[in-house]
Amino acid sequence: MADLQAILDSIYTDILPRVGEGKVADYIPELAKIDPRQFGMTIVTVDGKVYRVGDADIAFSIQSISKVFMLTLALGKVGESLWKRVGREPSGSAFNSIVQLEHESGIPRNPFINAGAIAVTDVVMAGHAPREAIGELLRFVRYLADDESITIDDKVARSETQTGYRNVALANFMRAYRNLDHPVEHVLGVYFHQCALSMNCEQLARAGLFLAARGSNPMTGHSVVSPKRARRINALMLTCGHYDGSGDFAYHVGLPGKSGVGGGIFAVAPGIASIAVWSPGLNKVGNSQLGAVALEMLAARTGWSVFGD
Amino acid sequence: MADLQAILDSIYTDILPRVGEGKVADYIPELAKIDPRQFGMTIVTVDGKVYRVGDADIAFSIQSISKVFMLTLALGKVGESLWKRVGREPSGSAFNSIVQLEHESGIPRNPFINAGAIAVTDVVMAGHAPREAIGELLRFVRYLADDESITIDDKVARSETQTGYRNVALANFMRAYRNLDHPVEHVLGVYFHQCALSMNCEQLARAGLFLAARGSNPMTGHSVVSPKRARRINALMLTCGHYDGSGDFAYHVGLPGKSGVGGGIFAVAPGIASIAVWSPGLNKVGNSQLGAVALEMLAARTGWSVFGD
Amino acid sequence: MADLQAILDSIYTDILPRVGEGKVADYIPELAKIDPRQFGMTIVTVDGKVYRVGDADIAFSIQSISKVFMLTLALGKVGESLWKRVGREPSGSAFNSIVQLEHESGIPRNPFINAGAIAVTDVVMAGHAPREAIGELLRFVRYLADDESITIDDKVARSETQTGYRNVALANFMRAYRNLDHPVEHVLGVYFHQCALSMNCEQLARAGLFLAARGSNPMTGHSVVSPKRARRINALMLTCGHYDGSGDFAYHVGLPGKSGVGGGIFAVAPGIASIAVWSPGLNKVGNSQLGAVALEMLAARTGWSVFGD
Amino acid sequence: MADLQAILDSIYTDILPRVGEGKVADYIPELAKIDPRQFGMTIVTVDGKVYRVGDADIAFSIQSISKVFMLTLALGKVGESLWKRVGREPSGSAFNSIVQLEHESGIPRNPFINAGAIAVTDVVMAGHAPREAIGELLRFVRYLADDESITIDDKVARSETQTGYRNVALANFMRAYRNLDHPVEHVLGVYFHQCALSMNCEQLARAGLFLAARGSNPMTGHSVVSPKRARRINALMLTCGHYDGSGDFAYHVGLPGKSGVGGGIFAVAPGIASIAVWSPGLNKVGNSQLGAVALEMLAARTGWSVFGD
Repeated sequence: MADLQAILDSIYTDILPRVGEGKVADYIPELAKIDPRQFGMTIVTVDGKVYRVGDADIAFSIQSISKVFMLTLALGKVGESLWKRVGREPSGSAFNSIVQLEHESGIPRNPFINAGAIAVTDVVMAGHAPREAIGELLRFVRYLADDESITIDDKVARSETQTGYRNVALANFMRAYRNLDHPVEHVLGVYFHQCALSMNCEQLARAGLFLAARGSNPMTGHSVVSPKRARRINALMLTCGHYDGSGDFAYHVGLPGKSGVGGGIFAVAPGIASIAVWSPGLNKVGNSQLGAVALEMLAARTGWSVFGD
Repeated sequence: MADLQAILDSIYTDILPRVGEGKVADYIPELAKIDPRQFGMTIVTVDGKVYRVGDADIAFSIQSISKVFMLTLALGKVGESLWKRVGREPSGSAFNSIVQLEHESGIPRNPFINAGAIAVTDVVMAGHAPREAIGELLRFVRYLADDESITIDDKVARSETQTGYRNVALANFMRAYRNLDHPVEHVLGVYFHQCALSMNCEQLARAGLFLAARGSNPMTGHSVVSPKRARRINALMLTCGHYDGSGDFAYHVGLPGKSGVGGGIFAVAPGIASIAVWSPGLNKVGNSQLGAVALEMLAARTGWSVFGD
Repeated sequence: MADLQAILDSIYTDILPRVGEGKVADYIPELAKIDPRQFGMTIVTVDGKVYRVGDADIAFSIQSISKVFMLTLALGKVGESLWKRVGREPSGSAFNSIVQLEHESGIPRNPFINAGAIAVTDVVMAGHAPREAIGELLRFVRYLADDESITIDDKVARSETQTGYRNVALANFMRAYRNLDHPVEHVLGVYFHQCALSMNCEQLARAGLFLAARGSNPMTGHSVVSPKRARRINALMLTCGHYDGSGDFAYHVGLPGKSGVGGGIFAVAPGIASIAVWSPGLNKVGNSQLGAVALEMLAARTGWSVFGD
Repeated sequence: MADLQAILDSIYTDILPRVGEGKVADYIPELAKIDPRQFGMTIVTVDGKVYRVGDADIAFSIQSISKVFMLTLALGKVGESLWKRVGREPSGSAFNSIVQLEHESGIPRNPFINAGAIAVTDVVMAGHAPREAIGELLRFVRYLADDESITIDDKVARSETQTGYRNVALANFMRAYRNLDHPVEHVLGVYFHQCALSMNCEQLARAGLFLAARGSNPMTGHSVVSPKRARRINALMLTCGHYDGSGDFAYHVGLPGKSGVGGGIFAVAPGIASIAVWSPGLNKVGNSQLGAVALEMLAARTGWSVFGD
C-alpha cells in the first residue's frame, strides 16, 4: 500500500479549494468559534503504518464520535443485556429528536442518537461517581490510542452544560420512563465531558484501530473486544452512525463510520485500516461536509467500500 | 472453498429441528396457505460454483425481494435522478407505514419500503403499458438468472390485488402529492405482479449474483450495472433491506440483503458470493425467522461479514 | 328581536370592503372557478323568522357541512354504537391527515375530519346501494329544509372523484383496518356526492334549524332528533367542526358550527337561531375567512356566544 | 332555583354507591395517599346562593385547575400577545406529550396541557422572583374566592418537584426553542407550587364564579376580567380543558370546565353558576371519574348545557 500517501495527497489537493464549505455548529457556543478553514486526515493501517495530510495534528472536539468508545465500554460492562436499555435500529429522525422516545416508551432507537448515548453513559456509570466515570473513559481512550496526552476540553464541556437544553429534556424524559438509573445532572455531567474529548486525527484513528483489526490494536498488542463485537460495533456505525444521513453515507462512502458536530468523522475499513478526518463545516444533517466528501474519494480511490470494490 | 457445502450441511442440521418456527404471512390469502415446514438455501460464488441444501429447488413468492430488481431497472432508466422521487434513508417505521409519507410530502424514505417501491415501479413504467412493464421485469429477471422458466404467479398477484388496501392507500397518497405519474391501478397492477415473481433459491441467487461480482454476472458474462452502482445497491440493502429490522440484521448477519414476506431472503457477500435462503415462517418484523438465523450462521462460519472476519 | 336585520345589515356594511379576501379552494377544480367576491348570510330564529343579507340566495357547494347531516342520519340508524367506528375528540391535525389513522388503528378521531365522515357514510350506506344512499340523504336534507328544490351538483361530485386521491387513501387505509364495510369506490361515490350538495344560505339555515330548537324544526313541526342528541351534535361541532381551527373558532365566535371548503359555515345559537354564512375565500386552515369574521361580529353584537353574553 | 339543592341531593344519592371508582393519580407520591372514597360538590349561582353536598368542605390539591387562574393572570399582564407563546387548539394527545412540541417548534398547543401551562407560568413570572410569583398567584386566588385561608400544600409541591421528570423535559425542550425566558428550575418551582394549591369545592366554585358572571364576582363586587375575556377563557376550557378527553366531556356534560389529577373539576354554566366537584378516582384519560358523571347528571337535570336545554 505504498500509494496510500499518494491517494491522501490527491484527496487533499481536491479538497483544498473547497475548504471552508459548510457551517460550523453554532448551538454550542465554544464550537461556534472554530475556524472552518481547516482540514486534516489520517489513515492507520492494520499493519501499523500511519499516513496523514493537512491539519491531522490539530486537536478538535470529537463530540459524538465519543459514543463509539462509550458503547464499547458499556458492552464490556453489561454485554448484550445493554439492548434492554437501547435499540439497534436507525431512527429515521434527527439526532436530538424526542418524538421517537415518546412513541417507544423511553427506549432510544440506537446508541448513536443523543438519547441512546445518554442511556449508554448511564450504564457505564454504574457504581461510579461522575468524576470517576469521566476518568475511566479518559483512561480508556488514552489506552486505546496509546497516548497519555489526550485530554478533555473543560470549556467545551461547560459550554454544552449551559446550553444543552434538549439533552436535559431527553434525559429527563428517559428518567420519567425509568430508563435512567442515575440523577440526570450526573449523567449529563459525564455525557458533556465525553463529548468534549479533544483529539487530533491521528489519535482518533489509533484509538479506533481495534475496530478495523478484529478487536485488537495491532500497534499496542492490546486486545479490546472480541472479533464478533468489533463487527457488531461496525454494523451499528454503518446503519446508525450519521443520524438521519446514515443511508446517504453508506450509499456514497460505504464504510462504517461515526461523525461528530465538531467536524470529525471516524471510519473503518474492516481488515485494512482506520481513518479519521476532520473539517469543521457541517452539512445539513450535521455531518462534516468535506469530511464526508474526502471519505467518498478515499473509498473510490482505494476500493475499500465494504459493499464491493 | 471446498468446505462451503459442509458449512451449508451443518447449517441445515442445526436448522432442521426448528423448521416450522415463525408465522406465515396471513394478510395475503394465497401466501397463508404455504406450509411453514420448509427450508432451502443456495450459495452461488463469483467463480460460478453452486451449493445448495434443503428445499432449494422449490419456487416461492419472492415478494419484496423483487424491489431490488425493480430498483436496478429504474436506476438503469433514469440514473441518479431517481432520488428526486424517493429517499435513501432507513425509515424507522414499519414497511407499510404512511405516517412518514405525510410528514415528508409524499417522498418515500427509501426504495425498499412499500411506498418507495411503488414510486420506483412508477418510474420503470414510463412509456409502457402495465402489461409491457411486467413483461420487461420478467425478461430482466430471466436474463439475470439465465433461466427462461421463471414465472409470475397470477393467483398470488390477484390475491394481493383484492386485499392490498394499504398499498392502494400509499399509492393514492403519493399521487395526491404528485409523486406518481401513472394511474394508481396501473402502477399497483405492475407492483402486485412483480411481488408475485415465483423463484427458487437457486434462481434467486443466480439472478442477484451481479451484485456480488462488481455488477456483472460471471456465469453468463452479462454486464448489468457498473461496479459503483452494484456497491450502492448493496449499501441500500444493508441500511434499508429489512424494514424496521435492518439494524438488527446488520448487527447479527452483517451482509447486505433483502427480505420478502414470502419467507425468502437474498444476501450478498461482496466479491465472494450471492446467497438465497427460504423458509416461510416470519418473525415479528416480517422477515423469515429461520432464513435470518441461517444467514447469521453462514456469516459466522465463513467470516463473510462485511464488517470484519 | 326586531333589530336582527339591523345587525345583519351592519355586518354586511363592515364586510363589503373586504369581500374577495382569502383564497378559493383550488384542489377541487370545479370549486376553483368560483368568484371569491361573494358574501351572503341568513339567520332563521326558532320562532320562524328569517333574516338575510347579500348573496343569501345563491347556491354554493356545502362540502363538509354535509357531514352534520350524515352524522344525524347515522346516529338515527345505529345510535351511540356509532362511536365504535369513529371517535369524538378533536384531531389536533389537518382535515385530511392520515397520520392519526395509523397511530390509532384506523379509527378516525371524530366524524368531521374526512376520514371520520367517510366512516359515517359507510354506516349510513348499510343495506343500500350507493345511489339509494345518495337519494336518502337528498330526501333528508330536503325534508329538513322543507325545500324540494335542493340538488346535488354532479359536476362538483365528478370533479372530486377525479382528484380526491387523499380521500381514496384514507378510505383504503380504513378498509385495511376493517373499519369500512362497503367497497371503497361505493363509499367514496356517496361521499363525493354528499359533499356536492348545493344549497343557499337560507336553505342551509332552515335545514339545520332543528339543532337550535331542541331537535325539532319549529317551522315544519318535524321532530328530527331528541333534545339530548341535538345538544350532542352541537357539542361535536364546537369541539371538532373546524378541523385544526376549532379552538380558534370557539375562542372568537363561541357558537357550535361546521365549515366547508366551498366557503360556507353553518352555526347554531342554541335555543335562539340557526345561521348560515357564505363567502368563498378561505383562510389558512381552510375555513371561510369572511364567514368566520361575520360570525364573530354577529356573536359580539347579539351576545349569542354560548360562553356568556 | 329552589330545587338546586334537591338536584344536588339526588346526584349525591346516585353517586354514593359508586364512590371509590377510578384510580387515584399515582405518579405524584403525595397524591397517591389520598382516600378515593370521597365525593363533594358545590354550586355557586351568579346571584350568590351556595349549594353543597358531601365532602364539599375538604381541601384537595387542585392541580391543573390552577391553570385557569394562571391563564387569567397572564392575559391580564400581556393581553392577546400571550398567543405568540402558546396556541389555542386542542392537542389531540396526552396532557404531558412532548411530540407536538417538537413538531410545532416549541409552541405548546394550548394553555391547559402541561407544556402550555409552563409557558403561561413563565409569562406570569416576568419581573418576579419565583417566590414573588407564587405569592402573587396565592393572593389572586384568595382575592377571587374572598377567602384568606387558602394555602399551598408544600408537601405536594415538593413531591412533584422530586418526580416531575416529564415536566422538566417539557420545560427544557421549550427553553431549547427559546420559548421560556426564565431558568427552568425557577419556572417549574412556581409551576409545581401553583399545582399544589389546596382548596375545597366551595372555595374553588367561588374563585371561578367570575367566569360565569361576565367577568365580575357578584359576591364580592370585584371586576376580574372583561365579559369578552371571560367568554374566551370559557371557550378554551370547553375545547381544551380535559386534555384528550375534552371532546367527550363536551359531548356528555356540555359545560366549559377544567379538571385536575387531584380529582377536582371546575365547571361554568355561563350566566347561571359556577360548579366545583371533587372525587379522587380518575378515569383513563386522567379526569375525575365520578366528578364527570356528577356533572353530566347536573347538566341533564338542570338543562344548563351550553348546547341547548
